[in-house]
Amino acid sequence: MDEDIENGSLVSFQEKPRTFPDMRTKPYTPLIFQIFTRINARVLAVLLLLILGAVLYVGATTSPIVVFVFSICIAGFIFSAYLTRWVLAKDEGPPEMSQVSDAIRDGAEGFFRTQYGTISKMAVLLALVILSIYLLRSTTPQQESSGLGRSTTAFITVAAFLLGALCSGIAGYVGMWVSVRANIRVASAARRSARESLQIAVRAGGLSAMVVVGMAVLGVAVLYATFYVWLGVDSPGSMKVVDLPLLLVGYGFGASFVALFAQLGGGIFTKAADVGADLVGKVEQGIPEDDPRNPAVIADLVGDNVGDCAARGADLFESIAAEIISAMILGGTMAQHCKIEDPSGFILFPLVVHSFDLVVSSVGILSIRGTRELGSKVPVEDPMAILQKGYSITIVLAVIAFGVSTRWLLYTEQAPSAWLNFALCGLVGIITAYAFVWISKYYTDYKHEPVRTLALSSATGHGTNIIAGVSLGLESTALPVLVISLAIISAYWLGQTSGLMDENGNPTGGLFGTAVATMGMLSTAAYVLTMDMFGPIADNAGGIVEMGQQPESVREITDVLDAVGNTTKATTKGFAIGSAALASFLLFSAYMDEVAAFSHLPFKQVDIAIPEVFVGGLLGSMLIFVFSAWACAAVGKTAQEVVNEVRRQFIERPGIMEYNEKPDYGRCVSIVAFASLKEMIKPGALAIVSPVVIGVLFKMLGQVTGQPLLGAKVVASLLMFATVAGILMALFLNTAGGAWDNAKKFIETGALGGKGSDCHKAAVTGDTVGDPFKDTAGPSLHVLIKMLATITLVMAPLFL
Amino acid sequence: MDEDIENGSLVSFQEKPRTFPDMRTKPYTPLIFQIFTRINARVLAVLLLLILGAVLYVGATTSPIVVFVFSICIAGFIFSAYLTRWVLAKDEGPPEMSQVSDAIRDGAEGFFRTQYGTISKMAVLLALVILSIYLLRSTTPQQESSGLGRSTTAFITVAAFLLGALCSGIAGYVGMWVSVRANIRVASAARRSARESLQIAVRAGGLSAMVVVGMAVLGVAVLYATFYVWLGVDSPGSMKVVDLPLLLVGYGFGASFVALFAQLGGGIFTKAADVGADLVGKVEQGIPEDDPRNPAVIADLVGDNVGDCAARGADLFESIAAEIISAMILGGTMAQHCKIEDPSGFILFPLVVHSFDLVVSSVGILSIRGTRELGSKVPVEDPMAILQKGYSITIVLAVIAFGVSTRWLLYTEQAPSAWLNFALCGLVGIITAYAFVWISKYYTDYKHEPVRTLALSSATGHGTNIIAGVSLGLESTALPVLVISLAIISAYWLGQTSGLMDENGNPTGGLFGTAVATMGMLSTAAYVLTMDMFGPIADNAGGIVEMGQQPESVREITDVLDAVGNTTKATTKGFAIGSAALASFLLFSAYMDEVAAFSHLPFKQVDIAIPEVFVGGLLGSMLIFVFSAWACAAVGKTAQEVVNEVRRQFIERPGIMEYNEKPDYGRCVSIVAFASLKEMIKPGALAIVSPVVIGVLFKMLGQVTGQPLLGAKVVASLLMFATVAGILMALFLNTAGGAWDNAKKFIETGALGGKGSDCHKAAVTGDTVGDPFKDTAGPSLHVLIKMLATITLVMAPLFL
Repeated sequence: MDEDIENGSLVSFQEKPRTFPDMRTKPYTPLIFQIFTRINARVLAVLLLLILGAVLYVGATTSPIVVFVFSICIAGFIFSAYLTRWVLAKDEGPPEMSQVSDAIRDGAEGFFRTQYGTISKMAVLLALVILSIYLLRSTTPQQESSGLGRSTTAFITVAAFLLGALCSGIAGYVGMWVSVRANIRVASAARRSARESLQIAVRAGGLSAMVVVGMAVLGVAVLYATFYVWLGVDSPGSMKVVDLPLLLVGYGFGASFVALFAQLGGGIFTKAADVGADLVGKVEQGIPEDDPRNPAVIADLVGDNVGDCAARGADLFESIAAEIISAMILGGTMAQHCKIEDPSGFILFPLVVHSFDLVVSSVGILSIRGTRELGSKVPVEDPMAILQKGYSITIVLAVIAFGVSTRWLLYTEQAPSAWLNFALCGLVGIITAYAFVWISKYYTDYKHEPVRTLALSSATGHGTNIIAGVSLGLESTALPVLVISLAIISAYWLGQTSGLMDENGNPTGGLFGTAVATMGMLSTAAYVLTMDMFGPIADNAGGIVEMGQQPESVREITDVLDAVGNTTKATTKGFAIGSAALASFLLFSAYMDEVAAFSHLPFKQVDIAIPEVFVGGLLGSMLIFVFSAWACAAVGKTAQEVVNEVRRQFIERPGIMEYNEKPDYGRCVSIVAFASLKEMIKPGALAIVSPVVIGVLFKMLGQVTGQPLLGAKVVASLLMFATVAGILMALFLNTAGGAWDNAKKFIETGALGGKGSDCHKAAVTGDTVGDPFKDTAGPSLHVLIKMLATITLVMAPLFL
Repeated sequence: MDEDIENGSLVSFQEKPRTFPDMRTKPYTPLIFQIFTRINARVLAVLLLLILGAVLYVGATTSPIVVFVFSICIAGFIFSAYLTRWVLAKDEGPPEMSQVSDAIRDGAEGFFRTQYGTISKMAVLLALVILSIYLLRSTTPQQESSGLGRSTTAFITVAAFLLGALCSGIAGYVGMWVSVRANIRVASAARRSARESLQIAVRAGGLSAMVVVGMAVLGVAVLYATFYVWLGVDSPGSMKVVDLPLLLVGYGFGASFVALFAQLGGGIFTKAADVGADLVGKVEQGIPEDDPRNPAVIADLVGDNVGDCAARGADLFESIAAEIISAMILGGTMAQHCKIEDPSGFILFPLVVHSFDLVVSSVGILSIRGTRELGSKVPVEDPMAILQKGYSITIVLAVIAFGVSTRWLLYTEQAPSAWLNFALCGLVGIITAYAFVWISKYYTDYKHEPVRTLALSSATGHGTNIIAGVSLGLESTALPVLVISLAIISAYWLGQTSGLMDENGNPTGGLFGTAVATMGMLSTAAYVLTMDMFGPIADNAGGIVEMGQQPESVREITDVLDAVGNTTKATTKGFAIGSAALASFLLFSAYMDEVAAFSHLPFKQVDIAIPEVFVGGLLGSMLIFVFSAWACAAVGKTAQEVVNEVRRQFIERPGIMEYNEKPDYGRCVSIVAFASLKEMIKPGALAIVSPVVIGVLFKMLGQVTGQPLLGAKVVASLLMFATVAGILMALFLNTAGGAWDNAKKFIETGALGGKGSDCHKAAVTGDTVGDPFKDTAGPSLHVLIKMLATITLVMAPLFL
């Protein structure tokens, strides 16, 4: 690799040069969609109705609550279909714009195909590994008593894993599918009205958000109901409903497995292309961003779709799935300890909360209208204010919905006021989410002190800019950590004082309280995801306008939308890391429950005063550092290949700068695609292999030194230390990256010498460094810490 | 502050402009030295003999081992005195060089006076706080039974604290005193012979290393013996010898308190001056390093002395002190549990190990000779090889000495082969130290792959250089963590299998095994410190040669020494962080022992599954991030002030560049001194205040929620998570900084375009960013994690 860089030869690409037209040969639709489209419409309708009927029948057999969840999810999908039709009905603008858009779509779909091809192969391989582990594992006493055999458990877990992986893949695909179609329509609408353009971007983002959240909820609900009916749960002699959620952990792991690679691959793609394009384009040649003369510009725009839309969809999908499953496990365990007669309310509560999310977020999305009231003469509002207003509406509705759900499902005669305590836990979660969004905004928006100080430090050069950015990022971890600490402690305390007592009369609702707070945090996830998806769509629209040679006034509109998108992207990252932190804490507790169930040994403590357990923590934290290192290095390496390629094209085709010669966009796309797929393997494999290897090694050490459960304890410690280090590192990386980006934007508004000044050059360096921080390593860490938690859950039998 | 930067006015300095001659008015000698010099020589001799006699009498009453330790330490001081005379006897060279040296000395002494003035005021304040806490604390049952009153404990702890602080201050002063005198002599010798120059630098470094290590050992030994005699230990009805080490914790805290501020203040000073000088000098004006036209050059050279020499002396002083005390506590506890008849061997073992360090390191230092064998005609050897040879000699001797000490002191009839196991633990420590040195060298020396790849990434610009450096640093944490994990586990295992059993027949030597490994690691500390001190002395000599307008051939010699110094500095940092990690683990165990003793409650576990304890860990890790942020930001801010000042001087005195006008060096020195003293307060206060506040808050929360010892547990978790995060962060910062520095040096050897190329400019940016990483935040973290461990030990009564 390094030699290639040195002598500038990238043989594998030179042998098979690709240009854009070649890539258009075969428009790509995933197999599952192809099958759907080939079936006769009437047959399809009958089939769908049959499936719907079966699902509703199963649901009705399980619980009326499940029917409620199903209905809302289906309504959500119908709403998405309405949004899809609405967005697709918009015009695609002049051909010079749709050409660009087609090229982006081809690049994105091509990369998606290759990437998910690789991921699905790995998933199948992993499924086989899990199958063999589970065929050799021991079963829980409950399972034994219910006659649930070893092989049944194995196939259930693997099926759940594969379904989780598939749904996560679909979530990613939908995100990408929407954004490559919406970008051109947003760009085209920008020629008419800023407001309409905003509305299209929001509705497109909303549509994929609804699908992502709806599918996470529906997937878990369907699995739950199917297992319930199939295994005859709660009938005499078979398993109890409180043990059912433990069978779903495979779903969470499948989702996080795909999300990890989607985020890594997409993140490396988008930032390698971006950094490479900027380094040669902006810094060396002095041409503006998204200039059609830059050979890497299409790759950059493709990256927005595969890195931001597809990957964030998969990320939040798995956040919600993991959170639902762990909350179901904890709810079930608690209901069992408290001898609550009908535990299904506690178990199904998370599904209901997220169903309500679909409802309240729909209202929020629809509240953003394309036209203002007639007769109003005030100037166009700030798009950020419009989005914030929608968020406020969503939050108010979410609080009400949360109160209703807790009263409905968590009311129990054992503790009549418990539901109120849990409603307050939910409020803690909602406030936490709001605080996270606000803190990220404070540290990354140039209206506030930190970014202005950072911009000022660029005046003394590249070095001081980087030092200031690094310290800003490191410092920005303080407030979120204080908020999350307060949230954990207060939610736990509210849960403990809820009046729920276990068989020995000890208060026991604490952990479930933190679970409810996590749900509260995620109770507006669909709207937050909408705001997040908005960013890359607006960014792409800007690129299309620039490359489609549209007038300056159009570009101004997309620039405003793009700037707002940058802020929403940064703030939703804060939201994602906050919910990941809470979800990991829950999964950790679920892991301890599971280990205790399988080992038949009490497992209530993880004592870091034991040297091996301490070492586990050391290794867990180190894992985060090395993972971040490899994620950043992957971007750096790939970007260097892009730089060399772009430099080569500028030298070999001197006409590019005078618009006489067309750059070879396709080669840049394929270089980035090839390299990012190669580079995503190393950090991904590290994340999956190391907890398993460490668990097994320490299990053996424990056997030699006579310490039972040592492997499980070391893995628990690894998980906790990795979670803590991961939260801090992700906060650091995301915030530093966002701040550098906006410091540059602040200078570009004309401050401190404006564009082209030395100060601006230093700020561009900071922005370049921040790119892999905030869009590759940072978001990958969100996924990583949840993936670690789910992998330990699924692999737990290995450590015993 | 920011306004000052913006409008370029630094009023406080403009009102009282200072130039160099003004600063020479009052040569500074600390009060304690002034008193000594004013006393009549004969009276002094009598006094010294009397003190010596008293000390030896007390020692002899305590134990023959203490007499042995005293004798070795005194021999070490005599050896230092010999080295001092030897170094001072060397010539100071021509006046143009000694002028520069005088200016450096004045700047360094001026800063030292102000800095330690501030520190001593804070120390006195803190002593009063400790006094009041201890006057209100409860005493242990042992203390009660021995009649050791509350006020006695209070005064003992405060006296130990103040003595620790004083000794640490003296260690720092000696380091600085030597280096400001040795630099000119090394520079002068470089005009004659590279070899002689090397020898002077090594002997000067060795002299302060001997004083630092000797004083750490002697301080603890004197305190121990004094308390032993005063409290009538082991006589019927009074306290037992195994409880004595707990009274010494104040000494460790005093040492680490001073070391923290010494490192912070010195680190900010040296790097702010360096970064500021480089940014304007090298990058903007294109003049070489240490060029006399640069107004910040003297400040930069002063920084080497106050930042590197003084601070590293204080750092290793407190490493050794903390390690001795914690090992004494653990040894005493273990001896008590195992009912060993004479526990003094186990308690005094650390003192003996470090006494032997003085002996073996002296041999290592003396092995570096100024003249080669007569008749030899081979060219001058690589200085690095010479230093390595000395290190090898020292290590071989240390292994032998370690074996002798274990057989002498750790032989017990209860477990006849235990001493052998502990000797192997020591070997584990020595191997760990060697592995750490080797790993740091691999990641920071440009002979190896990582730095070369980093240099290559500079070819594509500032941004890719920074990304590559950050990922290199993050990745470099992996191997040290694996090594330290292996060391902890294997030393613990060797200790457990030593055959020592507690009253219930459980193996119990594990923790003491890790303590012995830590001693093994530090058993060549004096030689390692010598190599470390060598660096800044050589760096300074280079600066003096450059500023003294000496011929190119002289500069070449000092350049070679400087490059070697860079490598030794980087490798000893690896050594320092490794020993800090182990020492913190020991202090943590000592803390748990102490809490159990004072609370009369069992305290064997720190269970991170308890939400509050987990939150403690989260806060501890966050503390590391914020501390690093503030340390880096301090350098950035101060450097910006230097940049503005230097730019101002270049504008106001246009003759500087043509050597027609002399720059105002003094103003730069005083700006940096003022700013760095101001900036060291914030991170230092954070480190001291936050564990105390968190402990007290959670103690109160525990009282409300009915959880005993909650405060102590949360602090324990904070400590462990902070240690882990601190190790990783320090490794990251040190390695990234060292690698950037050497990548730049590699390019300056002519690779990739050489000096002045774009690639070199990008590498200079990396070097600038790395400066505060490796010389301010990184080393401060070493001190911080030990300071956190000692502050929790001393403040433990507050958390109960």
